[in-house]
Amino acid sequence: MRVGVLGAKGKVGATIVGAVEAADDLTFSVGVDAGDPLTLFTDSQTEVVVDFTHPDVVMGNLEFLIGAGIHAVVGTTGFTDERIAQVRSWLADKPDVSVLIAPNFAIGAVLSMEFARQAARFFESAEVIELHHPFKADAPSGTATRTAQMIAEARKGLPPSPDATSTGIDGARGADVDGVRVHSVRLAGLVAHQEVLFGTMGETLTIRHDSLDRTSFVPGVLLGVRNVADHPGLTIGIEPLMGL
Amino acid sequence: MRVGVLGAKGKVGATIVGAVEAADDLTFSVGVDAGDPLTLFTDSQTEVVVDFTHPDVVMGNLEFLIGAGIHAVVGTTGFTDERIAQVRSWLADKPDVSVLIAPNFAIGAVLSMEFARQAARFFESAEVIELHHPFKADAPSGTATRTAQMIAEARKGLPPSPDATSTGIDGARGADVDGVRVHSVRLAGLVAHQEVLFGTMGETLTIRHDSLDRTSFVPGVLLGVRNVADHPGLTIGIEPLMGL
Amino acid sequence: MRVGVLGAKGKVGATIVGAVEAADDLTFSVGVDAGDPLTLFTDSQTEVVVDFTHPDVVMGNLEFLIGAGIHAVVGTTGFTDERIAQVRSWLADKPDVSVLIAPNFAIGAVLSMEFARQAARFFESAEVIELHHPFKADAPSGTATRTAQMIAEARKGLPPSPDATSTGIDGARGADVDGVRVHSVRLAGLVAHQEVLFGTMGETLTIRHDSLDRTSFVPGVLLGVRNVADHPGLTIGIEPLMGL
Amino acid sequence: MRVGVLGAKGKVGATIVGAVEAADDLTFSVGVDAGDPLTLFTDSQTEVVVDFTHPDVVMGNLEFLIGAGIHAVVGTTGFTDERIAQVRSWLADKPDVSVLIAPNFAIGAVLSMEFARQAARFFESAEVIELHHPFKADAPSGTATRTAQMIAEARKGLPPSPDATSTGIDGARGADVDGVRVHSVRLAGLVAHQEVLFGTMGETLTIRHDSLDRTSFVPGVLLGVRNVADHPGLTIGIEPLMGL
Repeated sequence: MRVGVLGAKGKVGATIVGAVEAADDLTFSVGVDAGDPLTLFTDSQTEVVVDFTHPDVVMGNLEFLIGAGIHAVVGTTGFTDERIAQVRSWLADKPDVSVLIAPNFAIGAVLSMEFARQAARFFESAEVIELHHPFKADAPSGTATRTAQMIAEARKGLPPSPDATSTGIDGARGADVDGVRVHSVRLAGLVAHQEVLFGTMGETLTIRHDSLDRTSFVPGVLLGVRNVADHPGLTIGIEPLMGL
Repeated sequence: MRVGVLGAKGKVGATIVGAVEAADDLTFSVGVDAGDPLTLFTDSQTEVVVDFTHPDVVMGNLEFLIGAGIHAVVGTTGFTDERIAQVRSWLADKPDVSVLIAPNFAIGAVLSMEFARQAARFFESAEVIELHHPFKADAPSGTATRTAQMIAEARKGLPPSPDATSTGIDGARGADVDGVRVHSVRLAGLVAHQEVLFGTMGETLTIRHDSLDRTSFVPGVLLGVRNVADHPGLTIGIEPLMGL
Repeated sequence: MRVGVLGAKGKVGATIVGAVEAADDLTFSVGVDAGDPLTLFTDSQTEVVVDFTHPDVVMGNLEFLIGAGIHAVVGTTGFTDERIAQVRSWLADKPDVSVLIAPNFAIGAVLSMEFARQAARFFESAEVIELHHPFKADAPSGTATRTAQMIAEARKGLPPSPDATSTGIDGARGADVDGVRVHSVRLAGLVAHQEVLFGTMGETLTIRHDSLDRTSFVPGVLLGVRNVADHPGLTIGIEPLMGL
Repeated sequence: MRVGVLGAKGKVGATIVGAVEAADDLTFSVGVDAGDPLTLFTDSQTEVVVDFTHPDVVMGNLEFLIGAGIHAVVGTTGFTDERIAQVRSWLADKPDVSVLIAPNFAIGAVLSMEFARQAARFFESAEVIELHHPFKADAPSGTATRTAQMIAEARKGLPPSPDATSTGIDGARGADVDGVRVHSVRLAGLVAHQEVLFGTMGETLTIRHDSLDRTSFVPGVLLGVRNVADHPGLTIGIEPLMGL
């Protein structure tokens, strides 16, 4: 499979180029950066393009790629409902073309949320601890908030997690996200980590995800590249490509 | 729902009686111990019976219960293929009766194995660490061996986990179960714990199960009691009742 | 060494009697409960008495034991400054008698706090996570609050832990105890657990203590029994007997 | 304090230069690489030099620095007993000069081993789990082997850790290092991690060290730079500078 990369000279793009080159079953066709013509992809018979660029240019990229019959794997952010609708309308005319847009390519993070969703209704108690480097601006993290919401959704109709706390210090019991407590640790030396804890009589189940460096998106991007063609039309998130 | 208990005066049975009595949606009908007639269950309009007794008596119990149209949730061990076939033949005449026989009622342990199976094919590396009290005779534990086998099965066709170990001390890299390394820790103070570790570029996923006391089978038994009637015939393991 | 137990028929007392009887180097002399005369200890040549009784009776017990030249290991609560001063004055006349009064006999908890104190000044960041069963009334736990205070004390003069949080949900960053963040998890199935996390450039250190059942005070009581005689006068906490 | 760096253009050296420049209380004086004269240090009134170079050149560096009255903080390897003796003889003539040679500058690793040593004699059971990236050649790691040896040394005279294992698969119980079991996990995505587990009746204590990237030596080097002058003569390991 011939794979092209948009933003190939950027940090993320260069990492993807390296990963494609290192994979036995993939061929790196061409890298395209600001100023280069998109026709480099058609000239090089590229079959799939990876786009980790910028919200300002990603729509133009997608219009070209879909028109040219090239599949796209997109990690660029900023996809509003309007943008999603626009991509769908371009794809309507090209039934054989596939576009994957994912907010998170870290396979471990995606599985972690999926398992939390599956487990949630079988336990009395559920809490989330997320741990990040101290330069992070938001607490809880977006992933932790989303995880807590998924747990709350899966537990609909069940009694709330038991909690006899009657005295204490403000904040000790964490943030309340739809009834699920979320705790945010900020610690020098950490990267990005999350634990989902479930408990019932006599046992607990913990699902922990550790991102140890900034390359954790690579396996998910390669999984997207290898499988996107089997999912014609628009796919949001890598879950469907993982069979989840 | 009216629930009876076999072996009600034993340690496990008494715990189940207490749990049934504490559940708002269940009614404890009657407890039966050695010497008591099984007709106590029919006399008391019992709908489901929990059997944590002994291989010597469980078949007689099941023959009676199935004949009387009472569902059974069974944690007793010793079910050979022959015994399973016998139970199926009794059930053939009673299409509305359900029997659940499960080797493990700990919901967290069952989910832990299921998640390990689902995750296995998405990671380069997988290892299992099980940690138990020091009075345990076997290493690895049966659960760890089974978990490793399920991981190996799910990874069929993938390259082996990378491992550059060239020098070392015997045993450092653990036991090899179908290509998956399993490590057994024996430590005073522990009960029964297991970690499944998965790793790929830049990230790891850890699924940890902790049994903190001997009551961890209770929530799974109650789940069985509440759902067994919806699964007519013979069900092996609580997974189908959990929708897994 | 001949060891007696006060409150020997209570749950805690009975556990201690069992542990003394199981120890090769200790001899159980006599158990004394409400209504029994304290002279049973002198009649039986008891050398050390363990007192896990009640604030209402412990002072009378200690006055008798010190007067009789018997060492005491005390887990009973309620020792005010006045009571401590009274015990010291009784001991002033008996230079060979030792009394150990400890708020916490769990060796792991004591070491955990001691290590947190030693490590605190070498790291940029420090946070505490305590995890307990959901029936606990206070959050954070007393141990977690004390641990955070010890860390804050050891870090005096150092810059605060870095934290760029600017947006979030109330409580996400935990309780602030003297500048150290403390997070309280309440989860069915748990007993009593604590993690102290330290971080600096590229590395973290975690000290975790797990109490898995109510017997975790036993090894500390035996350590007290074996070593109290070497520490004449009043000792508060088992730390000095551990050489900390 | 004016700080110079040997091997300043190498990866490690450049990281140290950056860290010195970022520290408010330190001034970077000069970097010296292969081909540069060592007199650059004296010309620039350097007070402390950090040497992460090569066994082939480190002895020449130290002879010059000691002779010039400049303190040295050394992470270069290959110090045999003969080399140590040679450094001591150079220092004998310069009572005000300090040299620190350390095999491990990761503060968390050093504290982790120290705490393991302190805790070892208070628990019935002790085991070590070390977890590394799969490119590591040796199993167990040198740090894990050393930690196990320190634990064994501290437990001299105590009974062995209890272990009832009678059946199993080879290797499940790990490597035996002086009676302490050590388990080596190799997992894609990991860097360098170690857990020391202690257990006794009803409780466990876990000391975990995580190295998340290759910069974890920096805080220890800065600690050495700031404190080496207070320790005239030769110091082996950063422990004495940490007050351990």
